[in-house]
Amino acid sequence: MHIRGGIDLGGTKIQAVILDHEHRVLAELRASTPTSGGPRDVAAAMADTLASAAKAAQVETSKLQGIGVGSPGHVDARRGSVSNANNLPNWKEPFPLAAALSERLGAPVELGNDVGVALDGEAFLGAGRAYDSFVGLWWGTGIGGGVVLRHERWLGRGASGEIGHMVIRRDGARCMCGRRGCVEAYAGRRAMERRARRDVERGAKTKLFDIMEKKGRTQLSAGVIAKALEKEDEYAVWMIERAVRAIAAGLASAVNLLDVEAVVIGGGLGSRLGEPYAAKIRDAMLPHLFTPDRPPAVHVAELGELAGAIGASLLVPGAKSPEASHARRRIRSH
Amino acid sequence: MHIRGGIDLGGTKIQAVILDHEHRVLAELRASTPTSGGPRDVAAAMADTLASAAKAAQVETSKLQGIGVGSPGHVDARRGSVSNANNLPNWKEPFPLAAALSERLGAPVELGNDVGVALDGEAFLGAGRAYDSFVGLWWGTGIGGGVVLRHERWLGRGASGEIGHMVIRRDGARCMCGRRGCVEAYAGRRAMERRARRDVERGAKTKLFDIMEKKGRTQLSAGVIAKALEKEDEYAVWMIERAVRAIAAGLASAVNLLDVEAVVIGGGLGSRLGEPYAAKIRDAMLPHLFTPDRPPAVHVAELGELAGAIGASLLVPGAKSPEASHARRRIRSH
Repeated sequence: MHIRGGIDLGGTKIQAVILDHEHRVLAELRASTPTSGGPRDVAAAMADTLASAAKAAQVETSKLQGIGVGSPGHVDARRGSVSNANNLPNWKEPFPLAAALSERLGAPVELGNDVGVALDGEAFLGAGRAYDSFVGLWWGTGIGGGVVLRHERWLGRGASGEIGHMVIRRDGARCMCGRRGCVEAYAGRRAMERRARRDVERGAKTKLFDIMEKKGRTQLSAGVIAKALEKEDEYAVWMIERAVRAIAAGLASAVNLLDVEAVVIGGGLGSRLGEPYAAKIRDAMLPHLFTPDRPPAVHVAELGELAGAIGASLLVPGAKSPEASHARRRIRSH
Repeated sequence: MHIRGGIDLGGTKIQAVILDHEHRVLAELRASTPTSGGPRDVAAAMADTLASAAKAAQVETSKLQGIGVGSPGHVDARRGSVSNANNLPNWKEPFPLAAALSERLGAPVELGNDVGVALDGEAFLGAGRAYDSFVGLWWGTGIGGGVVLRHERWLGRGASGEIGHMVIRRDGARCMCGRRGCVEAYAGRRAMERRARRDVERGAKTKLFDIMEKKGRTQLSAGVIAKALEKEDEYAVWMIERAVRAIAAGLASAVNLLDVEAVVIGGGLGSRLGEPYAAKIRDAMLPHLFTPDRPPAVHVAELGELAGAIGASLLVPGAKSPEASHARRRIRSH
């Protein structure tokens, strides 16, 4: 029996899943990411989370076919190490994450880039599965993404998919990356928060920070922003409309270059705001499209909060075997 | 002996070439494109030009392995027809160009899109041949282009490569295509000319139009612009610097998305302005690149004015055979 694990490592949470060979989720578990210590502590927490999920699925971790991990930072898949994971505690130098997990869990571990594996998940099992080619845009703290061509992620020289750093306004707003006029400078959660804090200092009115405090948060999370939009907070509406226009211009540029069949929007904000905002992005793309008479399909990522962990599990050898592909087709036809 | 023909059909000229199986140019001939009449007259002029080139190469057209044609407008390669060639006289409806040429010349004819075949030429025999992936930008009357991935042009749903219509300034300058803020709105020859005429009406000083008249031209051709730059005409320098910044922003966006190995710059203006301006584009890309420490190589197209015709000739079956590829490698190593 081909049972596999997947772990999505994020700055605030660790998501683990256990799946069978027909991609059924047997168990899923979420835990907080350690905010102090170092890579070794994070790896221990990851192993514990995965082990608990396996227990819930009634399978020993040593019996797993393998475990896939989606990680932030710089992932060296061949060496099994991760470096420069800046949202994780003291994780600058390369740490042998695959070996550390494998030793604790008794199963082989494969590493991949967090957004990359989520995109693979959508391509194989989610909103992208019906398309030969699509562009994925992960709308969250930053803006990540990727390009899937002939059902495979196009990697370029290893740094492709930076749709968040496509230029939509030369000499425009300063981006967190230091450059100017990137999509992310207008639409990334962190960039929007920075702008909102500055605007409030200068007298702008918004309920965003009240909602944040009421929710006991310290950041303008996707949930905080969604709540403010629900309450029709004028500032939040303006902020998100500006983000939608920036995302739409970047996506339209990508579509004009590649003429892909579809666009898939995921990430914390993308998933939280969902279909109504995907529709707004779709509409805002039209004025920029070279072939507006046949725009690409625009979908919200389907695997939701599990996209990263499920996508990571596809790194396990055999997960995309012909039998697995067959199972996928049956799932699709339901 | 595999000898083949190629024709590049442009709004002002028809370029014909005859090549042998090792891609040596046996003859090349250029003639003016008819500016009146209709598709039938244009086809006759094309056939005459190709026939004269073949005669110069001492080969009968009926002995040619085939003839490839790069055409503007909408090319239906399967049907062998061209429609909506707006720079050609009375060429709106589909015209069976392949059949018309084949009948006159006694050899099979293959059609392709003009920029597409030029890009194929650069990919197989020119500046792109050393790269697995590159983005081509054709800087001329408009801005065309294409994406070559794993040595093949990526076609998408048939309308890919519109790098001239990537957005670099939301709500920016009006483009000839009707949209706003496209690369072409700042850098296309026609858009620059429109802007220059308007600025001159409003009192701007430039030698551009004096040079144009002295050259007996009615448009700001690439040659006119190059001459004005040579004379350090301030307006022309500003105009081209603005174009360079627009092109660089578009290219950087494409590179951030695809992380290709190289960029190849061709087209009338690209080839005419050459290496010094390719270097300016390279420099202007750096501030926008996500990985500025390893920028893509930036090259001027190598096949120059013959790129279209040579590229078109590659449409002939067998032109890219293993033997031909071998010959290509030998040419490269010289």
